[in-house]
Amino acid sequence: MKEQIIKKFQMKVEFYDVDSMGVVWHGNYVKYIEKARCMFLESCNFTYIDMLKNGFVMPIVKMDFKYIKPLKFNEIFFVEIILIECECFLKFRYILRDINNNKVALANTSQVAIDSNTKLTLYEIPKILKQALI
Amino acid sequence: MKEQIIKKFQMKVEFYDVDSMGVVWHGNYVKYIEKARCMFLESCNFTYIDMLKNGFVMPIVKMDFKYIKPLKFNEIFFVEIILIECECFLKFRYILRDINNNKVALANTSQVAIDSNTKLTLYEIPKILKQALI
Amino acid sequence: MKEQIIKKFQMKVEFYDVDSMGVVWHGNYVKYIEKARCMFLESCNFTYIDMLKNGFVMPIVKMDFKYIKPLKFNEIFFVEIILIECECFLKFRYILRDINNNKVALANTSQVAIDSNTKLTLYEIPKILKQALI
Amino acid sequence: MKEQIIKKFQMKVEFYDVDSMGVVWHGNYVKYIEKARCMFLESCNFTYIDMLKNGFVMPIVKMDFKYIKPLKFNEIFFVEIILIECECFLKFRYILRDINNNKVALANTSQVAIDSNTKLTLYEIPKILKQALI
Repeated sequence: MKEQIIKKFQMKVEFYDVDSMGVVWHGNYVKYIEKARCMFLESCNFTYIDMLKNGFVMPIVKMDFKYIKPLKFNEIFFVEIILIECECFLKFRYILRDINNNKVALANTSQVAIDSNTKLTLYEIPKILKQALI
Repeated sequence: MKEQIIKKFQMKVEFYDVDSMGVVWHGNYVKYIEKARCMFLESCNFTYIDMLKNGFVMPIVKMDFKYIKPLKFNEIFFVEIILIECECFLKFRYILRDINNNKVALANTSQVAIDSNTKLTLYEIPKILKQALI
Repeated sequence: MKEQIIKKFQMKVEFYDVDSMGVVWHGNYVKYIEKARCMFLESCNFTYIDMLKNGFVMPIVKMDFKYIKPLKFNEIFFVEIILIECECFLKFRYILRDINNNKVALANTSQVAIDSNTKLTLYEIPKILKQALI
Repeated sequence: MKEQIIKKFQMKVEFYDVDSMGVVWHGNYVKYIEKARCMFLESCNFTYIDMLKNGFVMPIVKMDFKYIKPLKFNEIFFVEIILIECECFLKFRYILRDINNNKVALANTSQVAIDSNTKLTLYEIPKILKQALI
């Protein structure tokens, strides 16, 4: 993986995402980055369903967020997702920007592969996923 | 079932349940009544896990709500759950009240039993569940 | 309002919408129909933000669902939203269909207008909203 | 603040918290630690409502999670919350444990105080909150 793989998805703040302070509740960003991750994987033709078919799942083991600027109801924003690592862990970085390109939030996730049957952690990302991604 | 079986559970509004109007988002009442239903079933020693062990699941097929008075952050409220029917359908009624006994909302749910293996609808509630409930 | 006003929106099931039975958790349909309602209002150029600017809010007072066929992860579906009444209440009907046009679920919502300042219920939908909708 | 202030709260996994893998969806831990944080603040007699009354709010600016062991439906677990800093930031650490005292997850949050009127960041936690906490 010599070059970084970046994809960018447009989203919009729904009414049910906004808290009593009038801004998106911080926990809802977990949904936004999961949606971006699923769209990323789908654009590589390898969704969570394909993982299951190939006998593994990929739970999140680490996740962090930095919140910079609040998002409001009906606001359009963009999630940039960058594939950072695909060796022992599957790591993504996320940059959320508003319509004026201002950073809204940053996030990172790490996932491991787990064998669906044995429930044991696989110490490498399965080749079939690696090939789909890179 | 000659007498109505009623149980009552105390709950509290969390910050993440409140919308930008400063009141509990109407969709979150679905969680409150599900929590009451699970507590009801657990108090009868027959949870969703026992259903699965006995080869059936019980999806919601109908649900309705009437909203009377909004709930606010940190407010304590009560969910009364009443077993209405346990024949072809499992039907519950819910009355939500605030700390002054004012009605906050009303709801109803209907569930059917489905065979976990065949995915076919069972036209009666399994006896083992009936016996646990009544 | 002589003719029914119908709009149709495409949506997709996200991973975080699916429950342990492998189907969309019934409570998440509240989000799908709210999203459709907001898109409907936006297509009429009158969003919740415009309501606030005009001094009223429109809480849900009644809501019902009928679940027909489960939705699964990554499934594309459609929400048809139909304006049923716009007099004392704002009433919408919703028909959810899968990609093969099979009915997935039905729903109805009723909303009343409330004066933002006095918190009193308005016994008619404000004219400005009526004009935007019809 | 010479000694660490630790509080511990018991919680339970609800059906609607569990994802299609049969474990609590990772995003729902944000709710668990928020609930613990609100309970911590309430036990110090200083809730989010008191913050608003005193003219400030405290949004999350950083949050991280480490997931160690999955939680399942109906499982009882404990959230230990530890006050780490109360100077420029309000920082909490969270340790989630199952009923056998095994670590389930770790988390950290940082909050800043923001003036409700001016929307400007306050570079110190308001004294009234500090006094309530320590």
